[in-house]
Amino acid sequence: MRPGTSRVRTVGELFERARAGDPRATGQLLSLVENPSDRLREAMELLARHAGHAATIGVTGAPGVGKSTLVAALVGAYRQVGSRVGVLAVDPSSPFTGGAVLGDRVRMQAHATDDAVFIRSMASRGHLGGLSWATPQALRVLDAVGFDVVVVETVGVGQSEVEIAGLADSTVVVLAPGLGDGIQAAKAGILEVGDVFVVNKSDRDGAGQVVRDLTAMLRLVPPGPHAWTPPVVRTVAHREEGIDALVVELRRHRDWLTTSGGLAERRRWQAREEVEALAQAEFLATARSVLGEAGVSDLADAVVRGALDPYTAADRLVQAAYRAQHAASSTPYGDGSALVL
Amino acid sequence: MRPGTSRVRTVGELFERARAGDPRATGQLLSLVENPSDRLREAMELLARHAGHAATIGVTGAPGVGKSTLVAALVGAYRQVGSRVGVLAVDPSSPFTGGAVLGDRVRMQAHATDDAVFIRSMASRGHLGGLSWATPQALRVLDAVGFDVVVVETVGVGQSEVEIAGLADSTVVVLAPGLGDGIQAAKAGILEVGDVFVVNKSDRDGAGQVVRDLTAMLRLVPPGPHAWTPPVVRTVAHREEGIDALVVELRRHRDWLTTSGGLAERRRWQAREEVEALAQAEFLATARSVLGEAGVSDLADAVVRGALDPYTAADRLVQAAYRAQHAASSTPYGDGSALVL
Repeated sequence: MRPGTSRVRTVGELFERARAGDPRATGQLLSLVENPSDRLREAMELLARHAGHAATIGVTGAPGVGKSTLVAALVGAYRQVGSRVGVLAVDPSSPFTGGAVLGDRVRMQAHATDDAVFIRSMASRGHLGGLSWATPQALRVLDAVGFDVVVVETVGVGQSEVEIAGLADSTVVVLAPGLGDGIQAAKAGILEVGDVFVVNKSDRDGAGQVVRDLTAMLRLVPPGPHAWTPPVVRTVAHREEGIDALVVELRRHRDWLTTSGGLAERRRWQAREEVEALAQAEFLATARSVLGEAGVSDLADAVVRGALDPYTAADRLVQAAYRAQHAASSTPYGDGSALVL
Repeated sequence: MRPGTSRVRTVGELFERARAGDPRATGQLLSLVENPSDRLREAMELLARHAGHAATIGVTGAPGVGKSTLVAALVGAYRQVGSRVGVLAVDPSSPFTGGAVLGDRVRMQAHATDDAVFIRSMASRGHLGGLSWATPQALRVLDAVGFDVVVVETVGVGQSEVEIAGLADSTVVVLAPGLGDGIQAAKAGILEVGDVFVVNKSDRDGAGQVVRDLTAMLRLVPPGPHAWTPPVVRTVAHREEGIDALVVELRRHRDWLTTSGGLAERRRWQAREEVEALAQAEFLATARSVLGEAGVSDLADAVVRGALDPYTAADRLVQAAYRAQHAASSTPYGDGSALVL
C-alpha cells in the first residue's frame, strides 16, 4: 500500500492529521460524526477533551438577505488576522432553495484553496429548517481540531433560528431592505435570538428604514440578565463594506460573554440541552426496540380508538424500556456504582 | 350552598355539563388540561373515549395576512349549517404581536354570545412560536365535548407551522399580497404543510401575482402518497368573500382524507408522536428527579470541561432513571404483566 492513500485510519490518527491541518482528515472526522457507528462514540470521547476553544458564530436570516456573501466576507476578515476558520452551511433540503444555496456556495470558492479555511455543507433535518442532529457534533469537530472561529450558516426558516442561538456563542441575524413590511412583524421573534444584527445590502433604498425599525424594536426588548444591547451593523457584503465593524462587534460580544460569565453559563446550558436530548433519544430507541414497530403502532392505534389515553400509552412505553433495562442489567449492574463523574 | 355556584365538580360532572353545551364547564375542562394535576390524568382517560369525531382545521400564516378575520368568517359559515365550532387561538407571547392579536380577538366578538361557538386563547410555548404542550389536549377537550369543527389558529412564526400540520386534519395556509418578494422564498417550507391555500385580501393589488406564484410553486411539489393537490382559494375575509369556497375545499379535503385512508393514517401518526413525546418527557422528569438539579448540572459541567463526552453523560442520565425505576418497581412489578393493551 502506498503511503498516504486511503487505508482506514484510527480515530486518533485522523484527529492528529486534522489538527495538523489536513482538510481530508477533517472531512473524514465530520463524516464520522454525521453517520452513527461504533467509531462515533470513540471520536466523541476524543473530541470532548479538545473542544471548547473556538469562537462559534451563528449566522441566520431569511433567504435573499445575502448571508452566504456575508459569511464569505467574514471568513476573509478573520483570515487577514491569521485565524483558522471553519464554516458549516446547513442547507435546507427543500428543492426550492437548493439551487440558490448551491449558487451561494460558489461565492465561497475564493477560500477553497486555503487550507486554513474549511467549508462543509450539511443537510438540514427536514423541509422546514431545523438543524441536523449532527450539527453540534460537527461544530465540536471543527473546534477540537483547532479552528479558531467556526461559523454556522443557516437559512432562517422555522426552527433553525432558535436552534442556532442555542448552539453558537454569538448569533448574527441578517436582514436586508426590500423584504416587505410584514417581515419585521413576522420576525419579531428574531429580536430575542440576535446578539448582533446586520442590515446587509445597506446601499439599497429602505436600508435606513430597516435600521430605524430594528433599533426601535430592539429598544422594546427587555434587557437580558447581563444587559447586552445588540448592536446594528450596516454592511454591503459583496463589496466587503462594514465587515470590519461586524468583526469588532463580534469580538466585543465575545469579550462581554467572557467577562460577564455569560459564556460559561451559555455553554453549560448548551451542554445540558445536548445531554438531555441524547438521553431522550437513547431512551426512545430502547423503548421502540423492546416493543417493536408493531408494538408502538398498537399503542398508537389504541389511542386513536380511544381505548387508551395518551398518558397511559406513554406509561406503557416507559415501562417497556425500564423492563428491558432491568432484564439486561440484573447481572452486570445492581450495586449502583456507575454514577461516578 | 346555592345550586349552580362554584363548588368543585368532578371531572365527570364537568364533562357532562360541557357536552350539554355549558361554556363554563368547557372552560374549566380546558383549564384542567392546561394545568397538570391529578385530575388531568382522570380527564384524559375520560376524554380519550369520546374524542376523534371533530373535523380539526389548522389555520396558519404570517402576521398581517388576516388570519383572525378569516377564522371569524369561517366560524360564521360553519354556524350557518348548524355546526358547533371551537376555536383555539395560540398567541405568541412576544410583546410585539400581543397587541395585534388582542385586536384580532375583538373581531371574534360577533360570536361571543353564541353558545355553539367556543373561543379560547392559549399561550404559545415560547417567544419563537411553537404550540403549547397543552394544545393537543385542549383540542381533544373540544372534540370530546361535541364540537363538530375545531379551528386552531396559529401565527406562522417558526415552529408552529410544522406543529399545526401535525395536529390538525386539514391545514390552511393563509397568504396575502403586499408582503414582499422575499416572503415566497422564505416560506417555501409552507408549501409542504398546506392542504388548502388561501390568498386573503385578494381585492388588493398583487393578489393575482401571489396566486400565480403559489400555483407555480405548488406544481413543483412532489405529490404525496395519496396525490392530493392543494387548491388555492381567493378570499376577502372582512367582506366574507370566498369563505363558502373555502368551506367547500375543506369538506373536499376531509372527504378525500376519509376515503383515501389518509385520515386514519394521519391520526395514527399524530397519536404516535404524542405518545412518544409524553414518554420522553416522563422519562426525563424521572431522570432529573433522581439526579437532582445539582446532579444534572454536574453532568453538564463535566461535558463543558471536556471530562465527559455528551454521549457518555447521556448514558449516565439514562442509567439514573433506570436505576430509580428498578429500585421503585422491584416489589410491585417483576412479573412483566403490565404490558397488556
